[in-house]
Amino acid sequence: VTDSQDTLHLLIAGAAGMIGRKLTSRIAAIGYLGGRAVSSCTLVDVIEPDTPAIAGFAMTARQGDLCADGLLECLLEERPDVIFHLAGVVSGEAEHDFEKGYTVNMDATRLLFERIRGIEGYRPRVVFASTAAVYGQPFPDQVPDDFILAPLTSYGTQKAICELLLNDYSRRGLLDGIGVRLPTVCVRPGTPNKAASGFFSSIIRDPLNGQEAVLPVSDETRHWFVSPRSAVRFLEHAATLDTGLLEGRRSLTMPGVSATVAEQIAALERIAGADVVRLIRREPDPEIERIVAGWPRRFAADRALALGFVADSSFDEIIRVHLEDER
Amino acid sequence: VTDSQDTLHLLIAGAAGMIGRKLTSRIAAIGYLGGRAVSSCTLVDVIEPDTPAIAGFAMTARQGDLCADGLLECLLEERPDVIFHLAGVVSGEAEHDFEKGYTVNMDATRLLFERIRGIEGYRPRVVFASTAAVYGQPFPDQVPDDFILAPLTSYGTQKAICELLLNDYSRRGLLDGIGVRLPTVCVRPGTPNKAASGFFSSIIRDPLNGQEAVLPVSDETRHWFVSPRSAVRFLEHAATLDTGLLEGRRSLTMPGVSATVAEQIAALERIAGADVVRLIRREPDPEIERIVAGWPRRFAADRALALGFVADSSFDEIIRVHLEDER
Repeated sequence: VTDSQDTLHLLIAGAAGMIGRKLTSRIAAIGYLGGRAVSSCTLVDVIEPDTPAIAGFAMTARQGDLCADGLLECLLEERPDVIFHLAGVVSGEAEHDFEKGYTVNMDATRLLFERIRGIEGYRPRVVFASTAAVYGQPFPDQVPDDFILAPLTSYGTQKAICELLLNDYSRRGLLDGIGVRLPTVCVRPGTPNKAASGFFSSIIRDPLNGQEAVLPVSDETRHWFVSPRSAVRFLEHAATLDTGLLEGRRSLTMPGVSATVAEQIAALERIAGADVVRLIRREPDPEIERIVAGWPRRFAADRALALGFVADSSFDEIIRVHLEDER
Repeated sequence: VTDSQDTLHLLIAGAAGMIGRKLTSRIAAIGYLGGRAVSSCTLVDVIEPDTPAIAGFAMTARQGDLCADGLLECLLEERPDVIFHLAGVVSGEAEHDFEKGYTVNMDATRLLFERIRGIEGYRPRVVFASTAAVYGQPFPDQVPDDFILAPLTSYGTQKAICELLLNDYSRRGLLDGIGVRLPTVCVRPGTPNKAASGFFSSIIRDPLNGQEAVLPVSDETRHWFVSPRSAVRFLEHAATLDTGLLEGRRSLTMPGVSATVAEQIAALERIAGADVVRLIRREPDPEIERIVAGWPRRFAADRALALGFVADSSFDEIIRVHLEDER
């Protein structure tokens, strides 16, 4: 048994994003994945990712676009055993810029798969970050695992196409893929991105920081959440799961917490008090209400639960995770 | 009202294939589509399509690959009002030749959509020939319209991806698409193509021609059929349907006849007698049995039925259509 079989080379594409950074920190902190020691980890993103100050293994950061000439070839030279593919533009941007969305979210993913296919005898685990936006209305109250893929956004379309490619490349033995459909990650730290779902985080995060937050939808709006910590654990679990158990359907809807805005606010009040909650200002925005009304509210996620993916237990826990990890 | 608004320019891509030829003949024979006169029709395929001897309008044939430099630009110069996109390689070939399948079935379709998008103010009806192979096992006894897209072949993957693109380009107003998932076309005239489903036709066609035919699967095998004539009527109806009725889900599973091989053979005996049926030789082929076992047997097709798509009434009718149209 050689060293390369015992230890893991990792590649994280999209490492400068919020989940990418948290995954990087987590791997640096534990140094293991599925019982195997990590020997090296390469980070790549369009802006240069930060490397954690302390890691018990080699951590390299690269700045660049996955479609740039020669970059993927170079990244795959080390034959990473596990590739986390988190790179992409968010829903708002993909809807606003048609070409950019297809280039970044679809073409770059296909190019990654093609470059892997080009390497004889190489079959890495590819963990692909997908989204509940692969689904579209009309929804049943609870969306089952075998629900139709009928996205209603360009972002959801691009992710659904990547899921289909991931499945076919895996079926043909060209890579060993698993797609992880993440719920809306909440509470997002830092500043908002361009996603229309941003307010679900800001109404918790900003009042906790003593700042006012705008709530653009009604209190009855129900949505599907995961903490950043659980999202990272999903990716970690997906990296080491026996993919034979997926029985050919390689993308999984992740479990989450279904909560209304009213339930989010009640949890915030239980944890931080009424004064904090008073910092939420109701200012309905018909455009955001329209977008959010098109999103699913709850998933069965039976397959992922059976495969050992564990969600947060409540929205209270999601807020507590935020306080522990960010403050 | 100018002439170009009153009459129709048509483009048929994949016009040299069996369905393409039958669609061409049908349009040449009737000269109308949805109550509007056809003023011109361009045919294109990788082998030069035949133009019918008699047509009351201009019929032009072009030979070429849709991805060839400048060909699509040239074909779209006339701004066809309706584009029938039937071009592609069949399931066996797409499975055998990974790159060819993706290039012909996926890249060429996307290029067509992109060239249409590149023309300001142009929004043609695009009728896309899709397939029941966008679905994969495990199947319920009858597959509903909202069943999961989970193909188990590269061919089905490529078609499913094109359906997703068709939907997104249509949603964004870049074209006016409709996807038509055809059942297995039976009885196919002429010589078999590379599809594993070929025997479903040859066990009818060849005995009717006094020739022996090999049946590689059991008599209990159930499958989903449409006559070439009804398949062409589906495309015709799709070209003129009000796509607003599709409510954003632009691909439709077509109705068909669900029959076992035993029911096919019983129909053949009713129509042509016991001597003809004796020309069917049973020679089980485990590879074909395995492939066919993975195919769906029956669809609800409720949406297509509600939208006025009409299937053959029985397998007897499918054989009678074959005798009328081919002999």
